[in-house]
Amino acid sequence: MAKATLQKKPVNGMKDVLPEEMQLRQWCMQIIRENYKSYGFTQIETPCVESIGNLSSKQGGENEKLIFKILKRGEKLNIAQAQTENDLADSGLRYDLTLPLSRYYANHMSELPNPFKALQMGNVWRADRPQKGRFRQFMQCDIDILGEPGNLAEIELILATTSTLKKLGFSGFRVRINERRLLRAMAAYAGFSEDAFDTVYIILDKMDKIGMDGVSAELSESGFAPEAVEKCIGLFEGMQQADEPLKYLEEILKDTLEDGVCENLIQIRDAVLAAGQEGFEIVFDPTLVRGMGYYTGTIFEIEMPEFGSSVAGGGRYDRMVGRFTGNDIPACGFSIGFERIITILLDRGFRIPEEKTKVAFLLEKNLPTEKLAGAVKEAQRRRDAGEQVLMVRMNKNKKFQKQQLEAEGYHEFVEFYREALKN
Amino acid sequence: MAKATLQKKPVNGMKDVLPEEMQLRQWCMQIIRENYKSYGFTQIETPCVESIGNLSSKQGGENEKLIFKILKRGEKLNIAQAQTENDLADSGLRYDLTLPLSRYYANHMSELPNPFKALQMGNVWRADRPQKGRFRQFMQCDIDILGEPGNLAEIELILATTSTLKKLGFSGFRVRINERRLLRAMAAYAGFSEDAFDTVYIILDKMDKIGMDGVSAELSESGFAPEAVEKCIGLFEGMQQADEPLKYLEEILKDTLEDGVCENLIQIRDAVLAAGQEGFEIVFDPTLVRGMGYYTGTIFEIEMPEFGSSVAGGGRYDRMVGRFTGNDIPACGFSIGFERIITILLDRGFRIPEEKTKVAFLLEKNLPTEKLAGAVKEAQRRRDAGEQVLMVRMNKNKKFQKQQLEAEGYHEFVEFYREALKN
Repeated sequence: MAKATLQKKPVNGMKDVLPEEMQLRQWCMQIIRENYKSYGFTQIETPCVESIGNLSSKQGGENEKLIFKILKRGEKLNIAQAQTENDLADSGLRYDLTLPLSRYYANHMSELPNPFKALQMGNVWRADRPQKGRFRQFMQCDIDILGEPGNLAEIELILATTSTLKKLGFSGFRVRINERRLLRAMAAYAGFSEDAFDTVYIILDKMDKIGMDGVSAELSESGFAPEAVEKCIGLFEGMQQADEPLKYLEEILKDTLEDGVCENLIQIRDAVLAAGQEGFEIVFDPTLVRGMGYYTGTIFEIEMPEFGSSVAGGGRYDRMVGRFTGNDIPACGFSIGFERIITILLDRGFRIPEEKTKVAFLLEKNLPTEKLAGAVKEAQRRRDAGEQVLMVRMNKNKKFQKQQLEAEGYHEFVEFYREALKN
Repeated sequence: MAKATLQKKPVNGMKDVLPEEMQLRQWCMQIIRENYKSYGFTQIETPCVESIGNLSSKQGGENEKLIFKILKRGEKLNIAQAQTENDLADSGLRYDLTLPLSRYYANHMSELPNPFKALQMGNVWRADRPQKGRFRQFMQCDIDILGEPGNLAEIELILATTSTLKKLGFSGFRVRINERRLLRAMAAYAGFSEDAFDTVYIILDKMDKIGMDGVSAELSESGFAPEAVEKCIGLFEGMQQADEPLKYLEEILKDTLEDGVCENLIQIRDAVLAAGQEGFEIVFDPTLVRGMGYYTGTIFEIEMPEFGSSVAGGGRYDRMVGRFTGNDIPACGFSIGFERIITILLDRGFRIPEEKTKVAFLLEKNLPTEKLAGAVKEAQRRRDAGEQVLMVRMNKNKKFQKQQLEAEGYHEFVEFYREALKN
């Protein structure tokens, strides 16, 4: 008798993927890969492990606190003299795919097309407190365009993502777009001081939950000058009344905003609409902020009514590659919340279409070689013809076995016996 | 100007996958997934991280020395009092897919079909000394059958793997099969002591390189008794002269070998041949050993003439799941050396077939919105029709740009200008 000495649960916060979910994941990945390919994106891969220096470079904001660090090996590890974590670890698991992509691009720029349209699908790790539907290892699915300074990048990223979501069976979603430079100009116009911008943004971000009055109250409670709060709220009221809020802003903010920022957003929106994909809307949303500090221009998010928070998000980060090379490179990316998509599809009870005929061969125990050979040959013939054939030993309780197999999608059974059946 | 402060190389021993190789990898994965599916295997996934206890359980032999360990987090980490690595780390990156599969099966047995035919494709990590073509993160691609005690498992695993290799464009390979119990019986018959079996196996394993005389000499030099060496070599000579070496062994070893072991190997070989797949041979090889200590029965390997070592290997490990549950479960697996397959295909200059029409749209800079919208709409139409459309900004040196795009497989160009071309 064996002795059970090993741990059969996965490590805390990570999960085993069962066959049914795995099939759904593969089906989604295949659609995502195919559709992004039709937009000219090419798939790449970076190692799951990155150097600690890169992972702790302040590009990742809060995520940097959640890194799984990897112990140094061999002579590099000196436990007795170690004082801090960074004496013990020189690498860690990546917490996103954007930082590794920027490193990759910096490293291989001369071998890559310009602009470079990259697709990445891979796991990332964050030591978040485990909770329902949230895991410490999860898949991200990112597209990025590097080397394109113009809004062709944003337009393509948005169209590729919305069409992918549609192929995954979603509709009725809403693309929200905004601009970091616009946020800055609005905050400057209202008269907030620059070091308070981030606090102001966080409050603005709550507009859809707490409304204009709520935002006004929270700004006041945070100690901002009444004139600034008033001027800020005035801006939002002005936008509400304007036919084209972006034109209104362009006029109002002409002293604090670079030329063309509003025009650029209008063009992105109009070009996306022109593609004629149906089933979603795209709107300018001056309250959209997005967490990451590395964004430098446009930011966007997709929300789906049936799922509270966003299912995709991204933006322009023109200054990350420069951290690796000394030369900034325009960059813009969009990330699908793969795990959320899977959760929604599972909750919906979504079943992927079965393409192959599935046949189960039931073989009586101890078949003589020639009968076994006959079964094997027939299975090969049907597999070569494109069918899925499962060869299994026949159980004593054949009826129960067939019920089980039917539940797995096998609806045809072929039985092989040691001797011809007496009838 | 940006300041370059980050490291643009991947961490030591791991690699970035460039688009061309990635395309090949995806193509291979798709073929592997599809073909294994037609044999009834279902894909699953386990976390890349496992507990240190499982990774250090002596199931992994030498690989356990190569584990990347992950630092404990939060209060669990006490650097000042730590004495050994295991005071610092409570998990690590998996070094193979077999141990995690056994844990997975132990954990989910009641939710899985019986027998369970699993396909896994995933990265594993080993802190090997980096060398050409060998990386510290690499993909493994395993199929396993759990819960099947009979040779249907071996037959299916071998046929599924050989047909997959054929679909990947390989032929002329050789499947070698052997049995751990047969190796033991031969060593016992010759009179070696049980604690010397592993040393004997390692020397036998060199037969194809150093020949019978070499093996004989090395056994003698290792200090084994002349009678044992002679009796061992006598066995091999007897097999060489026999029409059917397995029948010969069955007769000679009848006192030290369980009934049916030789018959079982013959049936596996004959059933595999009966399937009628062509382009490879399957042979019994009494010198095949395979490194891992966990094998309990049949072992097998596939070698390809153009590539020195094996491209696939596996065997039966009936006692691993029991380490997790207390109850042994029959298990057998076969692993394709995915990275070797990729290396061979890249060395051959293999090009995957291009399925889609690839069109590049070149857009002059600063197109007015209506022209941009026209281009976007036309791109959408062609993408919806199944074509791959790349939309890029037109460069000043359009001729060079087109040459670059042609190298990427774009052979049709559509140009969009701000104004109608004069001529």
